[in-house]
Amino acid sequence: MRKLFLLLLLSIAARSLQAEDGYELWLRYHRITGKALLQDYRDAISGIYIPVSTPVSTAAREELQKALPALLDKAVPLQQQAQAGSVIAATPAQWPAINSLVPAASLQQAGAEGFCIYTTTGADKKIIITGNTDAGVLYGVFHFLRLLQTQQPIQQLSIVSAPKVRYRLLNHWDNLTRTVERGYAGMSIWDWHRLPGYIDRRYKDYARANASIGINGTVLNNVNANATILSKPYLEKVAALAGVFRPYGIRVYLSARFSAPIEIGGLKTADPLDPQVQQWWKEKVKEIYHYIPDFGGFLVKANSEGQPGPQNYGRSHADGANMLADALAPYKGIVMWRAFVYDSKGDEDRFKQAYDEFKPLDGRFHDNVVVQVKNGPIDFQPREPFHPLFGAMPHTPLMLELQLTQEYLGFATHLVYLSPLFKEVLEADTHAKGPGSTVAKVIDGSLEGHAISGMAGVSNIGSDRNWTGHLFGQANWYALGRLAWDHTLTSAQVADEWLRQTFTNDARFVTPVQQMMLASRETLVNYMTPLGLHHIMGYGHHYGPAPWYDKAPRADWNPVYFHRADSTGIGFDRTASGSNALAQYAPAVRKQWENMRTCPEAYLLWFHHVPWQYRLPSGRTLWEELCYKYQAGVQGVQQMADTWQQVSPYIDEERAEQVRMLLAIQLEEAAWWRDACLAYFRTFAKLPLPQGVPAPAHTLEYYRELRFPYAPH
Amino acid sequence: MRKLFLLLLLSIAARSLQAEDGYELWLRYHRITGKALLQDYRDAISGIYIPVSTPVSTAAREELQKALPALLDKAVPLQQQAQAGSVIAATPAQWPAINSLVPAASLQQAGAEGFCIYTTTGADKKIIITGNTDAGVLYGVFHFLRLLQTQQPIQQLSIVSAPKVRYRLLNHWDNLTRTVERGYAGMSIWDWHRLPGYIDRRYKDYARANASIGINGTVLNNVNANATILSKPYLEKVAALAGVFRPYGIRVYLSARFSAPIEIGGLKTADPLDPQVQQWWKEKVKEIYHYIPDFGGFLVKANSEGQPGPQNYGRSHADGANMLADALAPYKGIVMWRAFVYDSKGDEDRFKQAYDEFKPLDGRFHDNVVVQVKNGPIDFQPREPFHPLFGAMPHTPLMLELQLTQEYLGFATHLVYLSPLFKEVLEADTHAKGPGSTVAKVIDGSLEGHAISGMAGVSNIGSDRNWTGHLFGQANWYALGRLAWDHTLTSAQVADEWLRQTFTNDARFVTPVQQMMLASRETLVNYMTPLGLHHIMGYGHHYGPAPWYDKAPRADWNPVYFHRADSTGIGFDRTASGSNALAQYAPAVRKQWENMRTCPEAYLLWFHHVPWQYRLPSGRTLWEELCYKYQAGVQGVQQMADTWQQVSPYIDEERAEQVRMLLAIQLEEAAWWRDACLAYFRTFAKLPLPQGVPAPAHTLEYYRELRFPYAPH
Repeated sequence: MRKLFLLLLLSIAARSLQAEDGYELWLRYHRITGKALLQDYRDAISGIYIPVSTPVSTAAREELQKALPALLDKAVPLQQQAQAGSVIAATPAQWPAINSLVPAASLQQAGAEGFCIYTTTGADKKIIITGNTDAGVLYGVFHFLRLLQTQQPIQQLSIVSAPKVRYRLLNHWDNLTRTVERGYAGMSIWDWHRLPGYIDRRYKDYARANASIGINGTVLNNVNANATILSKPYLEKVAALAGVFRPYGIRVYLSARFSAPIEIGGLKTADPLDPQVQQWWKEKVKEIYHYIPDFGGFLVKANSEGQPGPQNYGRSHADGANMLADALAPYKGIVMWRAFVYDSKGDEDRFKQAYDEFKPLDGRFHDNVVVQVKNGPIDFQPREPFHPLFGAMPHTPLMLELQLTQEYLGFATHLVYLSPLFKEVLEADTHAKGPGSTVAKVIDGSLEGHAISGMAGVSNIGSDRNWTGHLFGQANWYALGRLAWDHTLTSAQVADEWLRQTFTNDARFVTPVQQMMLASRETLVNYMTPLGLHHIMGYGHHYGPAPWYDKAPRADWNPVYFHRADSTGIGFDRTASGSNALAQYAPAVRKQWENMRTCPEAYLLWFHHVPWQYRLPSGRTLWEELCYKYQAGVQGVQQMADTWQQVSPYIDEERAEQVRMLLAIQLEEAAWWRDACLAYFRTFAKLPLPQGVPAPAHTLEYYRELRFPYAPH
Repeated sequence: MRKLFLLLLLSIAARSLQAEDGYELWLRYHRITGKALLQDYRDAISGIYIPVSTPVSTAAREELQKALPALLDKAVPLQQQAQAGSVIAATPAQWPAINSLVPAASLQQAGAEGFCIYTTTGADKKIIITGNTDAGVLYGVFHFLRLLQTQQPIQQLSIVSAPKVRYRLLNHWDNLTRTVERGYAGMSIWDWHRLPGYIDRRYKDYARANASIGINGTVLNNVNANATILSKPYLEKVAALAGVFRPYGIRVYLSARFSAPIEIGGLKTADPLDPQVQQWWKEKVKEIYHYIPDFGGFLVKANSEGQPGPQNYGRSHADGANMLADALAPYKGIVMWRAFVYDSKGDEDRFKQAYDEFKPLDGRFHDNVVVQVKNGPIDFQPREPFHPLFGAMPHTPLMLELQLTQEYLGFATHLVYLSPLFKEVLEADTHAKGPGSTVAKVIDGSLEGHAISGMAGVSNIGSDRNWTGHLFGQANWYALGRLAWDHTLTSAQVADEWLRQTFTNDARFVTPVQQMMLASRETLVNYMTPLGLHHIMGYGHHYGPAPWYDKAPRADWNPVYFHRADSTGIGFDRTASGSNALAQYAPAVRKQWENMRTCPEAYLLWFHHVPWQYRLPSGRTLWEELCYKYQAGVQGVQQMADTWQQVSPYIDEERAEQVRMLLAIQLEEAAWWRDACLAYFRTFAKLPLPQGVPAPAHTLEYYRELRFPYAPH
């Protein structure tokens, strides 16, 4: 009793001193609240038994040793042998007793990276966390800790879990100068200058966080790549990072600049069919594997937005990708070749260009090439229809590229939970092989039986103390990992998990904030780009509204190109009477979307130029609906701010205040979006604002004249 | 007894959980170690009494409330009235009893910003922290906490302290893009994009840290200034920062771009004698004070390294400075006009140019102008002779500019304690008014009775979790503040204070590490630029050795310009037979330095071209001594690494490991400096390496070919 009292006091002291600045992410391991549950956990867990000491099992042991004493607020010793209450983390090869305690079928189901968690029956109950590999066991350990952190019962665990997707990656758009393209959370966390000698503790915490959500690879550098990353001094730096990540099951990948043979190899060409070029890459890859024996492979942005590529030499994307793939193949490395391409020739709808270039190459890529396709055909807009390449390249594995960093979604200032956006594309039905041919089935390989499958998220991570600039940006990193592991999880489940681990299990907090998160993306769409509007942000930096902008050097970098507002209406006609981009979709999709009546309202202005007075199913005209959506967006943010105010007492002051300040900015900026867009669009519609929609606070000129020369970009 | 046991346990728990990542700087407030001392403190302190609630007194109260319970590990309540054991923080006006408890003379001595700390006598002992202003009281509070943190007796306190210098500033070379010129600790901590709405908690912690060491002003933006900082949206952001800093006695200053009237004012000229220009600045200043009523003033880099200035219009530095000063005068703002100028005309020794331009202007500056002079005549080298302007402008207040960020001293990788460098210049004797006319007396105003006096440090602060990249960089920030407050403190005292607060009071740690710190700057001089060598670093980024470099667009950006090695010898002849820069010093100084025999060895190659076989007082030839110094530098770093290894058990693992990794890099780089410089210089000296100096590890070509395109700069 006295001991308990002491422990209680200890934990209170620890708590009050612990800085809640967000650095710990969802791995906070605070003491379990709830007396009965804490007692249950304490009764069930007496110690840790890990029979071997490999690098990965050591990572698992360290995590258990860090987490369990903190969660249970009691000593949880490392044991020399398994006993009642042991948490055992091992493969069956490492502790053969597992074979009699965990069904063989479960282990088989777990595959190469999955795990099983079982509570044994009988008097000397133990908890077994196992898998066929050390990595699987590590994922199981993190899952077990997630169960505790989210206060799940652990009396009769019988869990089998395996990742649905093989390559689960972060893509860092980080430059060697430590700036981050589209980064809003400080500098790159890679301190290139002081690597390899100085190992920032962030590297390990980054690896822990990723492993905890199943991310198994990271592309360290920007797709707008610098060849210097492939030079010897930088490979030594990369190798140092790889060494930190390896015990966490994370492989390192690099963005390769296609012209590297010229820039650092001294060759005169980078022609993929040139034997000298091929040889150069073979030797370069050999050198890379000398430094990083488990190197993952290359990500390539070629012939897009000024990047060099095989087309410079009259070769195809397949020629370029295959050359690199052949160099990597002996080491089992892969090439992730990006489909985000558009050239400056002619005035073909930018929407169509990736499909036009890649579809004809289907079947021409070598086995270790995967084509990485953004979720939508333009560029990470608040909402896009799914990319028409999904389902259109049956002979080629396609990887899904999502953007965590909120380039077009309010930077690190707006609270937007992206899981609903991710799920929207994953659940979209391509109809490629009839109904049910979802994007998820394309990218997890199941639709066509591909061995390679993948999901990548463009990182929102930087040197800010809370990693992502906005605390809620952490939820998007978290969601990427969890959905890459299991895309059948719902956005609500993922939010629930994240909130409980990151803030509190208190339902008075979790329930309303979960609702707020789930609504947040639609709210943003409403105040930025409702009804299928897209790419009407400020030029270059993409900050704030600029639907009037028409001065970009390329037509398809201009908002006016995308919204096409005129006196008759608004929207981009991509039906047969327009650019006919819709012809790139399967007939079932095309049919629904090409008809203004059946096209979902959410995509309406993506595909149709709609008259201002066109009446929507709601009974409102398009103009009215546009106005109401913008207004609903602003109101949605107000609701978020109100909700946050109400739940703030249930969490620490510091994080409550951080989010409060950001929601206040978001509310201002949402009103700015509404006012600027409506002030501009009404110059075409020439219609009054409907009731309940306030007049813009300033003149259109005012909004047009705003300049943000130092907005992050 | 049982209570004590509990408290002990509590504190252990708190300790083990507290992350030691360096974020807390020297304000960690860990529990007092040492049973007897803790008991003394507990007996002496029962509560806090602060009779009023002004913004500044609130900051003082918050600090006491944060610190005392943590240091004493007991509740230290806020009291409604003073009683035995009260820590009372107030001005005499706020609590008149002070007048009978603290001598009037002491209060007078404390002046506008100083403080008195007295323990009252009698049965109901109290501790009184007072001053004539709230700011003085706040400084006293921080001093009192420093006494506790460094475990000083507090039984009979009788302390009066006043700053020797009025303007104690940090200069941030931070850009609006959040990059930092010569920054090695991440991004700028100013998150301009999210200001004014989002107030990062760092802003307050920055203010606390500065107030704790007496810094009372901060120049937020780079001297290579962007006029946009003076635009309305940015003034709103600046005002938000000023609001956070104000309760800590810190004023905000801005670097003003001289051509701002053209760039953001729409004028055709920035001529300081043009009435329109004068009017523009008057209105701009009025606008600034509207947003920031206690705005401090402008820092200006003009007609230097490409920056615009009055000379563009045929006007003098005085014309330019006075125009701005006149605009600021009604609000009591000041102009800090930098003397760091050199033009590209002719091939006059760069050493001489600031003196040549400014000396003739002495007496022509208005009352609220101070000329800010770097410690030495070139540019923040590891060692420079004091700047010849010190003592040469008796009618003008001069401010000392020091560099905390280690642009030429190993970036944030090398452990170099800069206080000895600061003290060296402060204690240098200009002989301007006879012996004892130290630089300290010039810049504290006492030599000529100036009302304005100042010291500024170019900040080494960035977004890194430990603020300064290298933990020991914090000591340089700390030293700047402490020496600006009292330049008579010794480097040893300052190091001792900093170590005790930052790490531990354990003498087994403090004593050897203090010695290591005190030796560190001389060690760096030895392995980089011994015997008066200067500016032989890599071009542009200043990383690593490049004594051979001769390709810069300006002669005086080339190392070869500065070392002038040839077959006869090495060094820059600045005597009458050379550039005669020595003529800029007072006769007593000049006489000592112009004679190769009497010139201190430390400055030898600053002033003389010395034959390789010239025999030094040590009996060694110049070549031998050069070799031995380089070798001694490398050995010095090895000793630092050894010392650190020995003392690491006395502190937390994380910080011990951080410093260990950096010392390992420093050792490698020191050897690189030695080897590269000796490999190069021996091509001139054509003499063998003396015994004990190893041959360079690589060929000279190897060192010459090293490239660091992404070194921070």
